Amino acid sequence: MYAQSQPALTSTLARLPTPALLLDRDRLRANARRLAGHIASLRGVLRPHVKTHKCVEVAREVEAAGHARGITVSTLQEAEYFFDSGFDDIFYAVGLSPNKFARAKALLDRGCRLSVTLDTCEMAALLAAFAATEGGSFPTLIELDTDGHRAGVDPDGDTLLELGRLLHERAGVELAGVMTHAGESYKCQTPQALLASARQERDRTVAAAARLRAAGLPCPIVSIGSTPTAFAIDDLSGVTEVRAGVYSMFDLVMANIGVCALDDIALSVLVTVTGYQRDRNWLITDGGWTALSRDRGTASQRVDYGYGAVLDTQGRRLPLLMSDASQEHGIISPANDGEGIDVSAYPLGSQLRVLPNHACATAGQYEEISVMEKGVVTDTWKKARGW
Amino acid sequence: MYAQSQPALTSTLARLPTPALLLDRDRLRANARRLAGHIASLRGVLRPHVKTHKCVEVAREVEAAGHARGITVSTLQEAEYFFDSGFDDIFYAVGLSPNKFARAKALLDRGCRLSVTLDTCEMAALLAAFAATEGGSFPTLIELDTDGHRAGVDPDGDTLLELGRLLHERAGVELAGVMTHAGESYKCQTPQALLASARQERDRTVAAAARLRAAGLPCPIVSIGSTPTAFAIDDLSGVTEVRAGVYSMFDLVMANIGVCALDDIALSVLVTVTGYQRDRNWLITDGGWTALSRDRGTASQRVDYGYGAVLDTQGRRLPLLMSDASQEHGIISPANDGEGIDVSAYPLGSQLRVLPNHACATAGQYEEISVMEKGVVTDTWKKARGW
Repeated sequence: MYAQSQPALTSTLARLPTPALLLDRDRLRANARRLAGHIASLRGVLRPHVKTHKCVEVAREVEAAGHARGITVSTLQEAEYFFDSGFDDIFYAVGLSPNKFARAKALLDRGCRLSVTLDTCEMAALLAAFAATEGGSFPTLIELDTDGHRAGVDPDGDTLLELGRLLHERAGVELAGVMTHAGESYKCQTPQALLASARQERDRTVAAAARLRAAGLPCPIVSIGSTPTAFAIDDLSGVTEVRAGVYSMFDLVMANIGVCALDDIALSVLVTVTGYQRDRNWLITDGGWTALSRDRGTASQRVDYGYGAVLDTQGRRLPLLMSDASQEHGIISPANDGEGIDVSAYPLGSQLRVLPNHACATAGQYEEISVMEKGVVTDTWKKARGW
Repeated sequence: MYAQSQPALTSTLARLPTPALLLDRDRLRANARRLAGHIASLRGVLRPHVKTHKCVEVAREVEAAGHARGITVSTLQEAEYFFDSGFDDIFYAVGLSPNKFARAKALLDRGCRLSVTLDTCEMAALLAAFAATEGGSFPTLIELDTDGHRAGVDPDGDTLLELGRLLHERAGVELAGVMTHAGESYKCQTPQALLASARQERDRTVAAAARLRAAGLPCPIVSIGSTPTAFAIDDLSGVTEVRAGVYSMFDLVMANIGVCALDDIALSVLVTVTGYQRDRNWLITDGGWTALSRDRGTASQRVDYGYGAVLDTQGRRLPLLMSDASQEHGIISPANDGEGIDVSAYPLGSQLRVLPNHACATAGQYEEISVMEKGVVTDTWKKARGW
């Protein structure tokens, strides 16, 4: 009843159960084209990461922007889900472990061009031993640690060559190249720092490939990537592919890093106003931390957006933040201290949209995506979740 | 191969894909009995909240501890899921909104004894208007704000009586009672503060019920609850039911509040060691923030456990913390600064267990629970997720 006099967009949104995950398809396309264009200008190739959305239709949109070959996944479940939907060139970019060998082999057996990564001679030996008894041959990239972020071998250390030799010489494993992820780029605050991070990621990876080749070992794939460094890099000489994922959606963390504008963010969460605390200038909504995730990535950044920046249903920014969250309650309050909220502007049952801190974490809370195009909900896309 | 010489427990865990959500059934039973015993000693009745586990089998274990009547849910999806499994006395404890009216009515129509809550006359009027056209009669509790936590009317204010009258007089809605949740009790640091919080929750709720009755209105249900206050309360006079949820599982936040010991925590996440950074004293695992959730509730508490305290597969505490998380990578490091890790004690492919900050958030990442009894994995239980 409260939405009868609203325009078409509001009407279609009003039919959605809330909380709901909304995707602005126009923004998705623009984001995908933007990175594809940048990588093309450097004569590079993308291998888009699907871990943010885990959605076949989104992956196809990203692929349609061009200059992409294959996909990157963060779980074997993603690999299986996308392979079942026709994606057959898949890099599983998280270090493999023994209890996942059989599942990876099953994909290879079904014809998937799956490649994997690891960073120890012990794991390579375990994989080769598995292949010796179970069969299969695993194209394997050596993971490099180029910025101290988490996993990977030192590009300048002895293990690189030892591991390269092992992968090249043992049956059941194939040395397919090197890969890294410049995860520390998320902490950059300036364009200069981003460029330095991107060049370090590239330089150390290209140098590791050169060391392998100088030792007489093959290194066909030289794979780098993170959304911040993918946009910042200015020369891809020596690099065969760039992996990035969150750029298709973007989020408030990326906006704070300076990689996108708030108006580029393609993902939002639709919530319903369920009540007020007038004395405290709070709107209460049905979107709590299950709807947005517990990710508070902007808490340590330039602008802290709480659990999210707030839009109206048309996508216009409001001077509000989602300031707190319980499991199924959101609290929305003025973005600027000392300001009030005219609650009459937000009647009970009316809807708001919340831009997330971290698109990967927020999307991870949902099994489907409501797709908006030119302001109207046009589709519902399924997505994967879990492992 | 690395688990062949280990005892039975390790062998059954070794067969699980990781990350996996583990439930120690013996601890679950003990936790359920502990609160049931306390409430029974006060001649009270529990209405257990299922939002932490969203699992029918867990709810049955909790019910088996006795002194319980009905369940509490945080979403209509939980209501539908549990009703389909034979639970027919359900209180939906999150403020209702217009786009959920039809779904709630469908449950009533199917014979579910569903009660709902709201905290504004406007929402009550919308619900009555819905019932006038669509039919149905909604047993409705007035939500009270007894501690400034989030939603609810002032127990001492005029709205309480106005809303009570409206619910009592209008067709399609029935005044069923009052409810509150002492969410601020999570911030208590001492037994004295917990007792004060519990008494305030009880006193203000019982007083609101008395105000309604003094105005000639019915108030059959007087419902209070949160895990910390449910354990702290010392007298339930005037209260008809106590709602609590996380107590069946417990977590590190609850241990920090002092409501449980670390050894009471029934939920953990099984992860696999995938690599090392020896120079930094890091183990890398396949359990990242998708596996534990982004909840860092202990960050602001007495002891900050990072993303979780670490156990071996037998459940013994190790001097390790999960110190950082990427989407699918966990970093485990020494709990005490300056200590090292003997990585040879944690071979690649070996498993560890991580106790979560917040059981509700961590369980929310999973669709099933691996159940352990007397140290052996005995079952897999499905759970609900989403809305």
